[in-house]
Amino acid sequence: MQHGLKSFFAPRGVAIIGASATPNKLSYGILRNMTLYGYQGQIAPVNPKADQILGLKCYPDITSVPDPLDLAVIVLPAPAIPATLEACGQRGIRAVIIISGGFKEVGEQGAALERQILEIASRYQMRLIGPNCVGTLDLYSGLNTTFIQGVPERGGIGFISQSGAVGGGVVDYIRDKFIGFANFASLGNEADITETDVIEYLSEEEHTRVIAVYVEMIRDGQRFMQAARRVTPQKPIVLLKAGRTGAGARAVSSHTGSLAGSHAAYRAAFQQSGVIEAQTVSDLFDISMALAHQPLPQGNRVAIITNAGGPAALLSDSLAENGLQIADLEEHTRSALRGRLNPAAQVANPIDMLGGAEPPEYEFALQQALADPNVDAAVVILVPQALVNPLEVAEKIIHVSGSRQKPVLTCFMGEWSVQQARQRLHSSGIPMYVFPEIPGRVLGAMLQYARWRQQSEFEAAQFNEFDRAAAAQILGQAGGQEALGEAQTRPLFEAYGIPLVAGQAAHSPEEAAEAARRLGFPVALKIISPDILHKSDFGGIRLNLNDPQEVRTAYQEMMESIANRLPQARLEGVLVERMADKGQEVIIGMRRDPNFGPLIMFGLGGVYVELFGDVSFRVAPLTRREALDMIHQTHAGKLLSGFRGEEPYDLQAVVDVILRLSQLALDFPQIAEMEINPLRVFRQGALALDGRIILS
Amino acid sequence: MQHGLKSFFAPRGVAIIGASATPNKLSYGILRNMTLYGYQGQIAPVNPKADQILGLKCYPDITSVPDPLDLAVIVLPAPAIPATLEACGQRGIRAVIIISGGFKEVGEQGAALERQILEIASRYQMRLIGPNCVGTLDLYSGLNTTFIQGVPERGGIGFISQSGAVGGGVVDYIRDKFIGFANFASLGNEADITETDVIEYLSEEEHTRVIAVYVEMIRDGQRFMQAARRVTPQKPIVLLKAGRTGAGARAVSSHTGSLAGSHAAYRAAFQQSGVIEAQTVSDLFDISMALAHQPLPQGNRVAIITNAGGPAALLSDSLAENGLQIADLEEHTRSALRGRLNPAAQVANPIDMLGGAEPPEYEFALQQALADPNVDAAVVILVPQALVNPLEVAEKIIHVSGSRQKPVLTCFMGEWSVQQARQRLHSSGIPMYVFPEIPGRVLGAMLQYARWRQQSEFEAAQFNEFDRAAAAQILGQAGGQEALGEAQTRPLFEAYGIPLVAGQAAHSPEEAAEAARRLGFPVALKIISPDILHKSDFGGIRLNLNDPQEVRTAYQEMMESIANRLPQARLEGVLVERMADKGQEVIIGMRRDPNFGPLIMFGLGGVYVELFGDVSFRVAPLTRREALDMIHQTHAGKLLSGFRGEEPYDLQAVVDVILRLSQLALDFPQIAEMEINPLRVFRQGALALDGRIILS
Repeated sequence: MQHGLKSFFAPRGVAIIGASATPNKLSYGILRNMTLYGYQGQIAPVNPKADQILGLKCYPDITSVPDPLDLAVIVLPAPAIPATLEACGQRGIRAVIIISGGFKEVGEQGAALERQILEIASRYQMRLIGPNCVGTLDLYSGLNTTFIQGVPERGGIGFISQSGAVGGGVVDYIRDKFIGFANFASLGNEADITETDVIEYLSEEEHTRVIAVYVEMIRDGQRFMQAARRVTPQKPIVLLKAGRTGAGARAVSSHTGSLAGSHAAYRAAFQQSGVIEAQTVSDLFDISMALAHQPLPQGNRVAIITNAGGPAALLSDSLAENGLQIADLEEHTRSALRGRLNPAAQVANPIDMLGGAEPPEYEFALQQALADPNVDAAVVILVPQALVNPLEVAEKIIHVSGSRQKPVLTCFMGEWSVQQARQRLHSSGIPMYVFPEIPGRVLGAMLQYARWRQQSEFEAAQFNEFDRAAAAQILGQAGGQEALGEAQTRPLFEAYGIPLVAGQAAHSPEEAAEAARRLGFPVALKIISPDILHKSDFGGIRLNLNDPQEVRTAYQEMMESIANRLPQARLEGVLVERMADKGQEVIIGMRRDPNFGPLIMFGLGGVYVELFGDVSFRVAPLTRREALDMIHQTHAGKLLSGFRGEEPYDLQAVVDVILRLSQLALDFPQIAEMEINPLRVFRQGALALDGRIILS
Repeated sequence: MQHGLKSFFAPRGVAIIGASATPNKLSYGILRNMTLYGYQGQIAPVNPKADQILGLKCYPDITSVPDPLDLAVIVLPAPAIPATLEACGQRGIRAVIIISGGFKEVGEQGAALERQILEIASRYQMRLIGPNCVGTLDLYSGLNTTFIQGVPERGGIGFISQSGAVGGGVVDYIRDKFIGFANFASLGNEADITETDVIEYLSEEEHTRVIAVYVEMIRDGQRFMQAARRVTPQKPIVLLKAGRTGAGARAVSSHTGSLAGSHAAYRAAFQQSGVIEAQTVSDLFDISMALAHQPLPQGNRVAIITNAGGPAALLSDSLAENGLQIADLEEHTRSALRGRLNPAAQVANPIDMLGGAEPPEYEFALQQALADPNVDAAVVILVPQALVNPLEVAEKIIHVSGSRQKPVLTCFMGEWSVQQARQRLHSSGIPMYVFPEIPGRVLGAMLQYARWRQQSEFEAAQFNEFDRAAAAQILGQAGGQEALGEAQTRPLFEAYGIPLVAGQAAHSPEEAAEAARRLGFPVALKIISPDILHKSDFGGIRLNLNDPQEVRTAYQEMMESIANRLPQARLEGVLVERMADKGQEVIIGMRRDPNFGPLIMFGLGGVYVELFGDVSFRVAPLTRREALDMIHQTHAGKLLSGFRGEEPYDLQAVVDVILRLSQLALDFPQIAEMEINPLRVFRQGALALDGRIILS
């Protein structure tokens, strides 16, 4: 684990290089923020033109700043930064935050400057945050190297943002809502330190209970996944990714100057490493807030305690849409509620105590609900009523949920009259949401994460019986080719143990007939030609040939007809294949993602993959369980698992092919794309009927 | 149009019956609210035990209240209400709001009381709002018969809520956000006045620019659709429906004591009548706020003006996910921007002016974007920066967007430092959202509504060439049956002009062979038996019979085999059908919804309808265009329209069958369910191959 980042959050001394004495400068704002939130270390403004700023002694250069000094924050024009960085290195500083922009994000010249500072940093074994960022803050050490106005309350959320603006906007939004942060880091261009580095630091940081992340792009996807797989069994990661759509990805690219990559790969990576993907900025903090202080639900059965039916109905919809159920209360619970609540109250779940419900009734109902063994989580709804004090209700909720055995979320529907209640609830670690749909979404995310935690450890599937050398030889021979035809993909797949329909090449009618006899009838013929990729378009496939004479005739007809239609094509013979039995056809594919590497695809075969887009993705390497998950994530999974009472197909055979194809992709980076289309799946076993490989 | 409801919003005088002098009573709260917001009419508390309350003269009973008096608000225990209502009737009051609960929502006894007050009201031609509601308010007349603390700003949203709690929560939430309301009505049990009545009133009410509705159930679905179809071409209706899921519907039922019905019917009804369906409470007001004051977009091309790239990327995603595009700016626009903005700014769309952007730059960029002919709408993003004053940016936006040719929405990402800006923007009719995902969703809804407005008028498809009498006779004969077999559905479908595969009943091997000769080979045989619904399960279907002898043999074998397996089944003969040509199979069905009547279903045939749930719904009657829409809403629509360059199938033939089936359902309410499964569709024409009808 990476501990070297502590200096960015809790250094013993900080120099602000370029600190201005002019109050409307950003660097002045940073210096002021350094003084405002209880930071106990040395604060050293560096500015040759001032003696002191904000009552702090000013230094002419970094060399003259005395110890202790762990961190330098640079706010200077970009061209001045290399020399300053050199000076920092000489001074022995190993942690630097570069706030200034003017680097990669402004084009090639800036990119060159960015390479230069990275080279300097590496020479001095310095770690860099930025450039082009808004700095870091730590609510426990009091460090604040940002110029954002105000800070959040102290709490358990560690927030990492690639966008300083998103970070600033969020702080502005939550600062009066008592949503507690442990720390915040804005990473800008990530010239050195990336989101993954900070995730690793925060995973060990004591005050951080949940890691919230906003990213526009993850450069080293494999490293991110490895880190996340280590962290998420202990600490949740909630992440919002910009650039889910083509338009969003283009916006990210034009803004960051980097390629965003496909969201299918991101989504797969998040699923495979237990990262909770947020859909919106508010979603990110709605979920993080709950994970920071509430226990995880042990199941999906929720009790609703409310003083109004409408919001409870909206919450019920949201729970159902997020995989949760309305708990069936025990008769014991219902009779206890009946004995105490308004006689007209609903004691079935939702427990609707009606508009007149007072704080003691809330207390009693929540107590009963949490004690019910059929209840895994509770949501308390309060709609402001003229005669009920929300703060008192909040106190009762805090009191009852003190033991923290089961998660308790609340919806106090309003703003004006529930401000104080929110402060009390949030300070006590109980999330309060304004609208009733939110707790449903949040509990859904908590449940998903709880299930992830229960999963066994990650262990990538391993095969021994594949012939790497044979595969290397075939690919070596394919040297300059762009694509491999079936005659080449067959032995390649065979080398990795992927089951193929029985087949054999033949170069004359007689050879074909002989091959057919050996394979067994009926057979199919497929043309072998480096110039024909889509064989069926040119009459290059003949099916269901039943005897040697049919095979001979078909061979001759095929050769003549193609020679007529494509006189320039090189015809090297045919592939004779035994016709496979009936079965369910699926597709297994791979394309190489720029950030994550081999991205494996599974989907239903035929016209339906295109019509319904019924596909799922995973990043290789993957476990047997992940391979099975990716099948079940599609509708095709239902079809294979014994739809409408049919006997199920051989899922394990499909899993096997997925894993072997993944291994092949991992072993040979020169393979850009692969596809087995179709893989025909039987009640026992599966056979690849056709394959296609594109080299990079 | 219904104008009788004016007394509920702008009466000349109001009596509060049961007004208490005790400040912690709800009825006191109502009286106080009546005095707080500028209401100019008479306010008459009725309470025999007080002389005056809040300085207002108190009357011992309703009879003694002088004119003018248009509205009575009753806040008394339920049992006292019938007598009071009688007195109101005698006094000549024609508009009454009953705040009190204790009616249908508490069980059968309350339901009886509710029937009683409805009877009294109808005797006096009185209109009722409630019971069990929180009353009405009108920001222009100053009327406020609720006990909610505070009111929203004046504005253009008319809000109708079946739940008083949701209404109260919303007011509490928005009151300091400067989201303007014209009026609000909470309808409670809807004993008399329903959401549809108030929609009709608000459609003509001058201050109401958009009608926002929260409903838990719509009892008279057909009337609602008719009203909405009249209103939405002029005024938008945005609606949130609780009970979308099974769990939500059960919560609604237990809370309202009524059946919620299926959400498929609601969703279809909203689509067919131009109602914008909101997904959450915040969605309801996010959308309504924009529709109240902004013009509709003429197309889907959006310009983004921002001072930060991250939020612009998030907005880009949201735009793409909601059917909008990032506008391609003209070179003219880009060069103008280049000339004026920071040299490092992005002048392609999103227009990213970078963190230092000042109010004049916002003004210039927005001006340029709105002037670009490639732009249909603009979203302005501001992330608070230490040195930029959000209020000044707001002023510039207000100034530039004054002409209101194209919609302008804003996202000021924060809370603490953007409060004043929000007030200014909202007071000027420019929506400000906190998070960048929201304007994408809102513009999507605006675009959908704009397209609805451009549609031609509603005109249900009409057929003349169907034989209602013949159909009536068949159904009459089917009297006590629960289900109709194919022998009965065939003539019924024929009577309504639904094309059927050629077929004929036969009662002996010879008759069957003779029928086959007449129909043409190959043919299929299907057993006719009132005791066998699923023919294929018992060997009751034989396909592809090619000559008379095959037909005779198949007939005999079928009869013997079924007689052996089901000795008690009555076997009435077989249906001989010509085998239909190959084609694409679809399903057309109907079931009767308790609130909306005939709900028509279209979907892809075979295993895929169940696997993918690829179906769409519409409420009958429907237009040709709606029938076509429902096909295109499914993936099957793509398959029929000429997928992958294939020749398209005959969509109009499918439309025709949908409309004829709808007509049959409308004409004969005793048909509970119908299904044509499959309808085989050809390049020209379509044929029903099998049908099933269930009677109620």
